[in-house]
Amino acid sequence: MNKRQLLSMIGAAGGATAMMMAMGQLGQVHASTFKGPIALEGGAKGKKVLILGGGVSGMVSALELSRAGYAVEVLEYQDRVGGRAWTIKGGDTFTELGGATQTCEFAPGNYINPGPWRIPTEHGGLIHYCHQLGVGLEPFQQQNYNAYLHSTDAFGGVPQRYKTIQADYYGHVSELLAKAVRQNALADSVTAEDAELLLESLRSWGALDRNMRYVKSNASASRRGWDKGPGGGLTAVPIPSEPLDVHTVLQSGLWRSIGGNLTNEHQYAIFQPVGGMGSIAAGFERAVGHLIRRNSKVTEIRQSERGVTVNFLDTKTGERLSTSADYCICTIPLSVLAQIPLNVGPTLASAISAVPYRPSVKVGLEFRRRFWEQDEQIYGGITSTNLPISQISYPSYGYGSQGPGVLLGAYTGGSISYELTAQSPAERVRRVVEWGKQIHPQYSTEFMNGVAVGWHRVPWTLGCFGIWTEESRAAHYDNLCQLDGRFMIAGEHASYIGGWIEGAVTSALDAVTRLHQHVQQAA
Amino acid sequence: MNKRQLLSMIGAAGGATAMMMAMGQLGQVHASTFKGPIALEGGAKGKKVLILGGGVSGMVSALELSRAGYAVEVLEYQDRVGGRAWTIKGGDTFTELGGATQTCEFAPGNYINPGPWRIPTEHGGLIHYCHQLGVGLEPFQQQNYNAYLHSTDAFGGVPQRYKTIQADYYGHVSELLAKAVRQNALADSVTAEDAELLLESLRSWGALDRNMRYVKSNASASRRGWDKGPGGGLTAVPIPSEPLDVHTVLQSGLWRSIGGNLTNEHQYAIFQPVGGMGSIAAGFERAVGHLIRRNSKVTEIRQSERGVTVNFLDTKTGERLSTSADYCICTIPLSVLAQIPLNVGPTLASAISAVPYRPSVKVGLEFRRRFWEQDEQIYGGITSTNLPISQISYPSYGYGSQGPGVLLGAYTGGSISYELTAQSPAERVRRVVEWGKQIHPQYSTEFMNGVAVGWHRVPWTLGCFGIWTEESRAAHYDNLCQLDGRFMIAGEHASYIGGWIEGAVTSALDAVTRLHQHVQQAA
Repeated sequence: MNKRQLLSMIGAAGGATAMMMAMGQLGQVHASTFKGPIALEGGAKGKKVLILGGGVSGMVSALELSRAGYAVEVLEYQDRVGGRAWTIKGGDTFTELGGATQTCEFAPGNYINPGPWRIPTEHGGLIHYCHQLGVGLEPFQQQNYNAYLHSTDAFGGVPQRYKTIQADYYGHVSELLAKAVRQNALADSVTAEDAELLLESLRSWGALDRNMRYVKSNASASRRGWDKGPGGGLTAVPIPSEPLDVHTVLQSGLWRSIGGNLTNEHQYAIFQPVGGMGSIAAGFERAVGHLIRRNSKVTEIRQSERGVTVNFLDTKTGERLSTSADYCICTIPLSVLAQIPLNVGPTLASAISAVPYRPSVKVGLEFRRRFWEQDEQIYGGITSTNLPISQISYPSYGYGSQGPGVLLGAYTGGSISYELTAQSPAERVRRVVEWGKQIHPQYSTEFMNGVAVGWHRVPWTLGCFGIWTEESRAAHYDNLCQLDGRFMIAGEHASYIGGWIEGAVTSALDAVTRLHQHVQQAA
Repeated sequence: MNKRQLLSMIGAAGGATAMMMAMGQLGQVHASTFKGPIALEGGAKGKKVLILGGGVSGMVSALELSRAGYAVEVLEYQDRVGGRAWTIKGGDTFTELGGATQTCEFAPGNYINPGPWRIPTEHGGLIHYCHQLGVGLEPFQQQNYNAYLHSTDAFGGVPQRYKTIQADYYGHVSELLAKAVRQNALADSVTAEDAELLLESLRSWGALDRNMRYVKSNASASRRGWDKGPGGGLTAVPIPSEPLDVHTVLQSGLWRSIGGNLTNEHQYAIFQPVGGMGSIAAGFERAVGHLIRRNSKVTEIRQSERGVTVNFLDTKTGERLSTSADYCICTIPLSVLAQIPLNVGPTLASAISAVPYRPSVKVGLEFRRRFWEQDEQIYGGITSTNLPISQISYPSYGYGSQGPGVLLGAYTGGSISYELTAQSPAERVRRVVEWGKQIHPQYSTEFMNGVAVGWHRVPWTLGCFGIWTEESRAAHYDNLCQLDGRFMIAGEHASYIGGWIEGAVTSALDAVTRLHQHVQQAA
């Protein structure tokens, strides 16, 4: 099995978080090289840059190059800027490959981010632009101890609270390690002095009793939850709950979802833009929208020693048009770019064809009320499950509001994504509702409507994001990023932060910096 | 050493979180008995209830009793309702015992909550009233992996990122336990089949390599932080960081701050009211403000077989006044109530005198800019330290704003609280700034102004909250909560959720329910 197959299998089995974890271990790692705003000094030497794609990497490029004095023109396929920084609201319509069109019926104020949906505080480049462009940020609840861990193979399919599984896993790990330390089994790894500190730390961290046992107690209940919580007056005395035994915790497999919340990207605090990811698109649009030509489908890219010429189709008027510039920064996803005639050298051509794109389906569901808050005290956060939906994410906005609410009902990876998109959007939504009922029976009575975005059927990206392996990185990554004549690639696919907007931002900053250096040297 | 002394010592050494943890272990535990709105049925039988104290417990009592048809009158000592649900903003003035008056100079939009400052989602009673009274809730960042753990005794006083210590502690715990498992040291505790699962879980949770070692790798760096983060284009390749060894992690003692974030009250998600805790007071005021007489200092409480009469001083006019009712619910803190003449039975009288109040100082500091966000990528959350300030908490609102910012510069417990309040407010602030410089050198240039609230010198509460021990609970708690003739106690001090507003809410709900039952039976 190669790494891509492994990733695909992990994605199908463990959901997006497990996939992200595995990607970390296999070489797709995330944080950022962003160190502060760039300043391209020395002037533009009268040059024009044509940018293909009005997503975040294209707009970062346009913003920084225009600030440095370059003439800039951006061609965007859609009637909307932002690319995958996309929010779907009530009234929005979109059409997938094959022609199926969905119109969102969400109530005002509700939305779903079908693409990226959260901003780690590690991602300083994107946060810098959000601050600069007036895009409000609010916390995204990644980890919610009141949300569920669910497996059809554990606890008879009954969801367990995240805090319960975590507390019991930590409790048993600490009890077991304490036992080994006291048996002197680790004397060659830990000095006697350190062993005392280790035992003290395990008691504190694992909520052990004074005999270093993880037992039913107020201390363990204050983490895993109570049989009866404490209160006031004469109904106040709390009743602790009974912990699960170590065998049950381990066999449940539900501990699989804990590690993913410890990575940089999923640590607290992380952000979301107020109003959805589309607010990022709108922020950039305020700055560079006047440079962007929409409804422009690129059909051919030709470079010569003197410049770059791009042919494109105006998808509204049907006109075939052409434009040219001294240089081109191309942010079109490789899955699409590989199908466009383009004269570049053989190493870049190979690189463009070397990166497959991840299939994925995200489904937004609207319900008559926020039953997850009202009935189950879940405010934001994510429930993980081994069902094909892989997770349910609750909205991190509008807490406590009384009207209809929207949650993310599915975020699939792997083969189930293809299976779902073989069906109509309505049927996908119906199946996701059926699966979700196993976790939230309220789906039966509260469901109103939904939208289902199959990313591999989105015409302008043909997949969620590019998937690199260690092998493909070694063979193709540098070639993909090099300036080829007058043509340069940028985008999340030209980064080590694949699948995150920060990859698009840092890739664009690297590309414009190198292009500018080239212009300075050539002048 | 008795438990109170122990708690005090822990409070002084470990800060509020350690204190809360220890309280959990000693019998002060938190969550809630709240199960949904109460409905007092059967009518009020023409009775009037006099409520002493216009804090949250008093206002919950007023709201529910007036809804049930009772005549309700509330006496409040201050010119403001809400009690400890209190927000200090620019222009606010307050005077402590001894006469020192402070006027807050914060810029518009900035504030500090000198009392309670966060709302666990476990606290369903308070959240219910927030929703019902239109009090907006937003996330409070308790745990921020970018914030610091600091000790003057570790790393030469250099603060460490929370994520670094946690990742390394988890990594070493998992490596050590894996080693013990592989040596068969735990064969009598874990079956061979479970041991395989345990090893798999430790690899995932601890970010171990395939040899079950916690080493420098992309996996460990994606939790503890990078030497150079990943990026885009040709500057993209990340460089992992070197983990600390197990000896260094254990000897640092910084692991002490991790366990406290695992308890129900400090788990994600937790809330704060938009605009500060004063928004809760304002929400209740909209509902029951017309029932509250402000500036009314209770001087004597007398009950007879026919009713209750309360003498009070109008602190604005100097008038001595009196009012009476069929019943009285008294929410005055026990520290104050114990000094007011009151005829109740001996068991209640003993109980009122049995609960000491916690000393504490909270200091809000305003700086010219949010250097913690701009320089250090800390958005909300808490830095823990063994310095007397015990913690620094960064604002969970206004992320990215450019003007002056306010943080909580100190939250002391124990004897340092008395030491600080022996000095003028200005001197307290000066010392807190000096201590904080050890963690954030920017204090030197960015500090503008501050306020310092010493809770044991706040005239209307004389301490932070009541401290119960197992012994005092056993001897006095039920006696404190019983209806004594026509007089009943409510407030956080009459709950098992001491120090949290939820204790006040559930205590009030229990009190009004029992009082109403009594009225029904007496009728």
